Amino acid sequence: MTKILGINGASRSYGLTYTLLRTALKGAEEEGAEIEIINLIEYDIKPCMGCLCDQQDACRYPCLIEDDMRKLYDKVLEADGIIFSTPIYWFSPSGIMKNFIDRLTALENMIVIEGRSWLEGKIAGIIAVGNDQGAVQAISTLMTTLVSMGFMIPPFAMAYYVGECREPSYDSLMDAYNLGRNVSMLTKLLKDKKIIWYRTLSRREMEALMHEVGEEIKRNRDREWIVRKSIIERFMTKMKSSVSLK
Amino acid sequence: MTKILGINGASRSYGLTYTLLRTALKGAEEEGAEIEIINLIEYDIKPCMGCLCDQQDACRYPCLIEDDMRKLYDKVLEADGIIFSTPIYWFSPSGIMKNFIDRLTALENMIVIEGRSWLEGKIAGIIAVGNDQGAVQAISTLMTTLVSMGFMIPPFAMAYYVGECREPSYDSLMDAYNLGRNVSMLTKLLKDKKIIWYRTLSRREMEALMHEVGEEIKRNRDREWIVRKSIIERFMTKMKSSVSLK
Amino acid sequence: MTKILGINGASRSYGLTYTLLRTALKGAEEEGAEIEIINLIEYDIKPCMGCLCDQQDACRYPCLIEDDMRKLYDKVLEADGIIFSTPIYWFSPSGIMKNFIDRLTALENMIVIEGRSWLEGKIAGIIAVGNDQGAVQAISTLMTTLVSMGFMIPPFAMAYYVGECREPSYDSLMDAYNLGRNVSMLTKLLKDKKIIWYRTLSRREMEALMHEVGEEIKRNRDREWIVRKSIIERFMTKMKSSVSLK
Amino acid sequence: MTKILGINGASRSYGLTYTLLRTALKGAEEEGAEIEIINLIEYDIKPCMGCLCDQQDACRYPCLIEDDMRKLYDKVLEADGIIFSTPIYWFSPSGIMKNFIDRLTALENMIVIEGRSWLEGKIAGIIAVGNDQGAVQAISTLMTTLVSMGFMIPPFAMAYYVGECREPSYDSLMDAYNLGRNVSMLTKLLKDKKIIWYRTLSRREMEALMHEVGEEIKRNRDREWIVRKSIIERFMTKMKSSVSLK
Repeated sequence: MTKILGINGASRSYGLTYTLLRTALKGAEEEGAEIEIINLIEYDIKPCMGCLCDQQDACRYPCLIEDDMRKLYDKVLEADGIIFSTPIYWFSPSGIMKNFIDRLTALENMIVIEGRSWLEGKIAGIIAVGNDQGAVQAISTLMTTLVSMGFMIPPFAMAYYVGECREPSYDSLMDAYNLGRNVSMLTKLLKDKKIIWYRTLSRREMEALMHEVGEEIKRNRDREWIVRKSIIERFMTKMKSSVSLK
Repeated sequence: MTKILGINGASRSYGLTYTLLRTALKGAEEEGAEIEIINLIEYDIKPCMGCLCDQQDACRYPCLIEDDMRKLYDKVLEADGIIFSTPIYWFSPSGIMKNFIDRLTALENMIVIEGRSWLEGKIAGIIAVGNDQGAVQAISTLMTTLVSMGFMIPPFAMAYYVGECREPSYDSLMDAYNLGRNVSMLTKLLKDKKIIWYRTLSRREMEALMHEVGEEIKRNRDREWIVRKSIIERFMTKMKSSVSLK
Repeated sequence: MTKILGINGASRSYGLTYTLLRTALKGAEEEGAEIEIINLIEYDIKPCMGCLCDQQDACRYPCLIEDDMRKLYDKVLEADGIIFSTPIYWFSPSGIMKNFIDRLTALENMIVIEGRSWLEGKIAGIIAVGNDQGAVQAISTLMTTLVSMGFMIPPFAMAYYVGECREPSYDSLMDAYNLGRNVSMLTKLLKDKKIIWYRTLSRREMEALMHEVGEEIKRNRDREWIVRKSIIERFMTKMKSSVSLK
Repeated sequence: MTKILGINGASRSYGLTYTLLRTALKGAEEEGAEIEIINLIEYDIKPCMGCLCDQQDACRYPCLIEDDMRKLYDKVLEADGIIFSTPIYWFSPSGIMKNFIDRLTALENMIVIEGRSWLEGKIAGIIAVGNDQGAVQAISTLMTTLVSMGFMIPPFAMAYYVGECREPSYDSLMDAYNLGRNVSMLTKLLKDKKIIWYRTLSRREMEALMHEVGEEIKRNRDREWIVRKSIIERFMTKMKSSVSLK
């Protein structure tokens, strides 16, 4: 059995951000996952202090800030998949969600401490809900962030609803359901696979690789540059003569 | 004399986020502005509660949350220009800056209460600093947010530095200086101009406008649609026959 | 054996966009993939005509525009994984790459024609290279696009280099290598799995789901709304009295 | 009298992208501007070749590619304000619009040739229209691009409509009208002002500036670093002892 965590970045648990998250988790449950919802508003999560810039290895689990993230880190670590659901505040995730994301750095930066992001290989889905535009922009930033941290994104693992604060659209609910289903299916498929998702090449391997690629690049340049060069030169000559004519 | 506020979204006032902000403010001062720096970390700024969704006119100055934003709202209202400087945390502004931005909604939403955003016509510049990528993405989200709130963006009013946490590049400092200079110049140029930047058309005016535009659209459609239609029809016919052939 | 396609969105095949792409494909090959590079510049790819807006089912394979995309569609359909490598032009993918992406709509929109995106379940990685910032913004837009089309994104499947047009950094090459390796590993893991990544719930199932979620939302609202309401009411009363005092 | 150019990035001139653009231009005309619409689809605009990377000063007006951009460059140069209207294709501008934007680099890069972007000081507004989400993301990327090129963005100078391809919303038309009006008002206000928006400081000025800022940074660090350092050290000590306990 896999574990899926739902992160609610809204200040309510009766709004549409929560509704879509809950719908996604139904999809996850149907695929056999054990689920849990975290309402971030109920936890004391201080903003990241950016220790990295002062001392790179000071940013590490369990973070030097002593607050509720300590409990949340452990929940994140136990989860196989995480679904992030955020209200759209000014075309991006809420400040509450942003602080939570920023603080996950302590797990990601374990790559500096011991060569491996502690978030590597987990599966993520992203939901955004708002009454104006900005859904895709909110999701985009989160998605590249999560992939950089080591998360994997299944097909269609994003859902959004933009409109009145009443009732989400049928389509957005269907999307949320499939998001949860897909996160859950992928956690099952990859469970116990023990995959290493970042392999640091030795200097020797790297140089062999660079040499091989470099040879091809050189051949390509030899072939293409003659044409390009003549186009540029012809243009530059024309430019100079046009300048002298003035 | 105009007033320019510098908003520091970093947790430090000795890092590069602050350095670039301070450099920008030097540029602003040279153009005659009175300046002030706000280190957000020194203020208690709670996350936005999103009251809008429950009751639209409950989101208004001075916000129902009783914290240090009350002081900051007044500083924002007095300023002619504001320079936002944020560290880049995961390709976007810090959680501290995000909470500040989210809370500015209480000034912007005065458009619902009394027909005018209280931020309308102010001039803004944006700075982002980080040790990995994401500068433009962080700035982009802030820029559309500020323009939606009623701010104006002068030429080149964005500056960024991405790299080691030591010394900003010469280029980024020059950009920051010009950012501050341009924000300051534009505040001077527009000071006391009393411009109304959002004019709500009456239904009658609107209908006249829509009619006029509608007429042209109809003419354009008449001209273009025949060609398009025939291309689409030819394709759809081919599709159907290819299906029946299978 | 799986097939990985490398899409080069640069106008050169001797620049860094190509170099990082080639490096990624080396990683893919080491994990057993058969690889092929497409230099988009060598193909005639016209811009998308947006037929969707005139007639929704007119946007379908093989697209009514008769150009080289017809060859490319077939290559895309045969591939298990695709690595998109683009130069960063103004904080986003090149126009060449953009036209290619826009034209993929004819495969994605098969979801309207026959209930399934023809890109569903393919694995993608994204590379961006430029001499100024914007890497993450370029990648972000592509990533949400690909996930919406049905692609899956493995951990760390993004790589970028921003800097001089000479030599990519060691780090960016390592990232590109791992990107290719991860795309390849995931294609192998999921090959022949025949997963359906979008399940359309029947109206009955959907209503059961909505009912269940709706019940919980109602309970949550009952619990939370009393507190919220009293806070809002207290604030609104204060506002009114402060107005009357003026 | 000022001149405002409307750039239509759609393949139609009877769709909503055109409708909102036309509405914006009505607003511009009412403020006294002379207006003109360019339907990009009617011009032959080849993709940017990225010469910059081979030879930096080869990217210059009138661009070495001999196509219709030569006419369009001159129209752009004559304009005081430009309104960009694009359909939203995959959360970003259409390929047609993207190619046009990429090719504007030949005007912007005049900063390398003669110290000044030829787009400096022009006023811009941005419109995006689509049937799914992505409006803000499309606008965001364009906005930072334009500001980097030297454009200025007036308050509320963005408008979007997302929905059915039939009729734009009343709100989006009102926004478009105001966008055009504001672009026009700002061109009038700044016409003939001859402002230099980028001042390159001499090395000496720059060093004086850096010295001054540097002194303050040093004082701030002295004050703050003691506290931070002790927090980090306490944490690191705890980490080490916890490691040794294992």
